[in-house]
Amino acid sequence: MRLRNKPWAKELIAAHPAYILVRPETIKGHWQTRFETEQPLRIEIGSGKGQFIVEMAKALPQFNFIAVEVQEAAIAMILKKQVAAQLPNLQLLYANGADLGDYFAPDEVAQIYLNFSDPWPKTRHEKRRLTYQSFLRQYQTILQPQGKLAFKTDNLGLFEYSLVSLSQFGLILDFVSLDLHHDPRVTFNIETEYETKFATKGQPIYQLKAHFK
Amino acid sequence: MRLRNKPWAKELIAAHPAYILVRPETIKGHWQTRFETEQPLRIEIGSGKGQFIVEMAKALPQFNFIAVEVQEAAIAMILKKQVAAQLPNLQLLYANGADLGDYFAPDEVAQIYLNFSDPWPKTRHEKRRLTYQSFLRQYQTILQPQGKLAFKTDNLGLFEYSLVSLSQFGLILDFVSLDLHHDPRVTFNIETEYETKFATKGQPIYQLKAHFK
Ligand SMILES: C[S@@+](CC[C@H](N)C(=O)[O-])C[C@H]1O[C@@H](n2cnc3c(N)ncnc32)[C@H](O)[C@@H]1O
Ligand SMILES: C[S@@+](CC[C@H](N)C(=O)[O-])C[C@H]1O[C@@H](n2cnc3c(N)ncnc32)[C@H](O)[C@@H]1O
Repeated sequence: MRLRNKPWAKELIAAHPAYILVRPETIKGHWQTRFETEQPLRIEIGSGKGQFIVEMAKALPQFNFIAVEVQEAAIAMILKKQVAAQLPNLQLLYANGADLGDYFAPDEVAQIYLNFSDPWPKTRHEKRRLTYQSFLRQYQTILQPQGKLAFKTDNLGLFEYSLVSLSQFGLILDFVSLDLHHDPRVTFNIETEYETKFATKGQPIYQLKAHFK
Repeated sequence: MRLRNKPWAKELIAAHPAYILVRPETIKGHWQTRFETEQPLRIEIGSGKGQFIVEMAKALPQFNFIAVEVQEAAIAMILKKQVAAQLPNLQLLYANGADLGDYFAPDEVAQIYLNFSDPWPKTRHEKRRLTYQSFLRQYQTILQPQGKLAFKTDNLGLFEYSLVSLSQFGLILDFVSLDLHHDPRVTFNIETEYETKFATKGQPIYQLKAHFK
């Protein structure tokens, strides 16, 4: 997803240091100080316009959440939502998921979400997929032992790839659904923007949950 | 799949000791003596009417194959095919997959196939699924180190279950297809009877390949 540039983005970000840091490297290892309550931290990589992470933060106040986005225009859209919602357990991070180790200390994160990540279907772009081994290594570094990864997508090829990539890296699968929206086991599911769009078209949504060893 | 009893089955089996042993426990650890050539051994658990294993034995003469079936009427159908084909690299075993350790010595098998195994969808029947942990333990015992397991099914619930069950047991996924018959990566695939039936109806076929550590 490429969003059109938003001329107002920079100014909005600068105006809300309580929700988004302009120099986020400085907070590495101390993210809990940015929240009202010290409680387990869950982050989403590639939050898009932020529907999922904002609704999750509302639904699960017993966790702290961070939306990580590499596109300024997208992070600005999330910030708009947070300025309206003022959730004490949501922070934003304008950064690349490839550099998570620069922003989080080892063991700082309890769970990572990936939702409808860009599929990069060509083999020569494998390294850009958020479930490629170099990304998994970053996740492992910042996650607590037994830390969890949850992934949803509509993309069959990316889901096949991710099952194998995670397994080969040493993650253990805890849950797999090949049709999340018609799965009788699923009782709680917050939709992302992409998810709503694809599910409305009748496409199956895939989900996996796994943990590092 | 429950086949009708075949009154001629016992007699046919007794008449072909070169293809099927009446007391197969005696050959444990010495299966290679039953084949023309000593070469890696691949077995299928629950071969049904045998289309897959017979065609595999024809297509891959550089491997030895054994069809394992718990239904006498089914093993008799496979035997009929083998009596016609006379393949030197195919043997039959009338036995329950739960007891593989009684028929094979540790490290005797290189690869195991499961195809369209009975799904047993009720949770209380989980222990009967051929990808339940007690079966996986049997497979691990008789397989060589890094031994392989390949599984195909049309059943979404059984496939979801099996991905998690294998992963939790410690197997590593090497390949996953969520639509085998339209997967550009697949160049070689021998169909089973069930596979032909379901694929003709347009249902997707799922496949995984994994190895034990
Ligand atoms: C296809 S969109 C999905 C957005 C949202 N998760 C959803 O499900 O509606 C993928 C998003 O991931 C972001 N993204 C891609 N690569 C990223 C990376 N390496 N680090 C952080 N965000 C990334 C993109 O900017 C884009 O907003
Ligand atoms: C649904 S049929 C599939 C047959 C064939 N594999 C195919 O794909 O067409 C399942 C077969 O597995 C056999 N089977 C079920 N449980 C078994 C077990 N524990 N050991 C050996 N065979 C078993 C059944 O007798 C039946 O023939």
